Amino acid sequence: MAAGVVAVRSSQVVLGLDPDPARLWPRALALAHDGASESDPAAKAARAVVAHCRLAIEATAEVCAGVKLQVACFERLGAPGWAALRDVTEIARERGLFVIADAKRGDIDISAAAYGQAFFGETETPFGPIPGIGADAMTVNPLLGADSLAPLVSAARRRGGGLFVLVRTTNPGAADVQELRLAASQASVSDRLAEIVTEIGAPGVGPSGLSDVGAVVGATAPHRLDALRERMPHAIFLLPGVGAQGGNVRDLKAAFAPGPAGGLIAVSRGIIGAYERTGGEPARAAAEEAGRLREMAWTLAA
Amino acid sequence: MAAGVVAVRSSQVVLGLDPDPARLWPRALALAHDGASESDPAAKAARAVVAHCRLAIEATAEVCAGVKLQVACFERLGAPGWAALRDVTEIARERGLFVIADAKRGDIDISAAAYGQAFFGETETPFGPIPGIGADAMTVNPLLGADSLAPLVSAARRRGGGLFVLVRTTNPGAADVQELRLAASQASVSDRLAEIVTEIGAPGVGPSGLSDVGAVVGATAPHRLDALRERMPHAIFLLPGVGAQGGNVRDLKAAFAPGPAGGLIAVSRGIIGAYERTGGEPARAAAEEAGRLREMAWTLAA
Repeated sequence: MAAGVVAVRSSQVVLGLDPDPARLWPRALALAHDGASESDPAAKAARAVVAHCRLAIEATAEVCAGVKLQVACFERLGAPGWAALRDVTEIARERGLFVIADAKRGDIDISAAAYGQAFFGETETPFGPIPGIGADAMTVNPLLGADSLAPLVSAARRRGGGLFVLVRTTNPGAADVQELRLAASQASVSDRLAEIVTEIGAPGVGPSGLSDVGAVVGATAPHRLDALRERMPHAIFLLPGVGAQGGNVRDLKAAFAPGPAGGLIAVSRGIIGAYERTGGEPARAAAEEAGRLREMAWTLAA
Repeated sequence: MAAGVVAVRSSQVVLGLDPDPARLWPRALALAHDGASESDPAAKAARAVVAHCRLAIEATAEVCAGVKLQVACFERLGAPGWAALRDVTEIARERGLFVIADAKRGDIDISAAAYGQAFFGETETPFGPIPGIGADAMTVNPLLGADSLAPLVSAARRRGGGLFVLVRTTNPGAADVQELRLAASQASVSDRLAEIVTEIGAPGVGPSGLSDVGAVVGATAPHRLDALRERMPHAIFLLPGVGAQGGNVRDLKAAFAPGPAGGLIAVSRGIIGAYERTGGEPARAAAEEAGRLREMAWTLAA
């Protein structure tokens, strides 16, 4: 799915946008205040969030392959937040970036299909069709099994997009369930999830050798990468956890076994908050940090 | 959490609202058309959805303990859908109903906290606080482990609300992951999830003997009920899957072991679509079906 843009930009870096209205870039706050006529705090905050995301996208688009939007951060702003999610998606797509909605959704049959409409498609109504967010991909939770993912795979595929299935997350508690050993195989729950990814992704393997069903594999568990790559030879790995959470780009080589687009490195605070560590203008610091990460990843994947 | 309203209404029935704009009650469509000045299809559809949910709530509130709102169905209507989710929550709470946001969210640390703000709390911004949906409870996905649920437990607890953790879902594919046998215990993944529910719910067990951390246990797998109740003695079971999905109220007795509020029976299409089977007015058919389910469940639980 994202192979084209990875090649065009020579980059595997995905800018993570988890906007906190209390920690936006100062210029975004100033832009949002200028000419704002809304009295509703949610509308104002959503404006500021869009301004912040736009600045961050403009600063880094040339060295990034895509953006990952943390949906929770938009939902907490209410209806204007949902509109902002759509606006930011459009801004990123206009810049040629691949847009991943980090929604971690998962539900059964018609509810899964409804999430597919919300993120990838549209909803027919007696009043006319309602367009969804228009994302290229979304993160999904596989706890409900393969049949719960099928409507989302279909919705993504119709659009030429894809999914990233949670296989091994970055948090310490990931071990509670994902690392449990199974009686039948002595492998872990994560290993079984990886097999499901391969199964549902098989019809979506393209000429690049990569499937439209990828996997979220935390950069905080590099010791698991080889085994997971073996079980998912065609999946694009979305790799969060570099930087603040302790992961390191140089430990991620196994992700790139199928080629340069085999791994996408998602970094949020490391890029957006770079100016807090280095000083200077937020946009410039973000561009420099994204460029540095791109160089490291591109070299590693070569 | 819901013990009070179960006692007051003598009901364990939860009205499931999964509104599809193409299948609303005819009167809701008529109400939405009257005086509608919006030209935006999403705004019109959201108006119709709110009208539909209001009619369904008014028809059944006296015989129900709560409502379960399928968040996917609101999200697909865009920003007006998100506003509708909040409106319907308020309508249901005004009628004394317990509101469960069926969101199946699950994410790590600050993202989980952001979902807590969106559904239970509010979000501080430089422009003032933004209120969330105001739900009493939400469904959550435990694949990311206990630490991912902690911020949501805290957010719910601050509000006197609670969570329903997915333990055994209703769909056939539930077996793919939830019924895998574990090497250490020979129990299943669901059994382990049940233990996590009991662990994180322990500090929230109230004088009723019920915890503020409940579990989603599908009525389609009654053979699992006894074992799951044993592992979760204090959890309220949210039981979807009665009716269209094949579950039967009379198989659910084990859910009520801790008392009448030990189980909540969530029925969507069975109540909302009752008129399609019996003929007659949708509101009256819904009230009759909800009343019938209430009688069955109340007798079973006694």
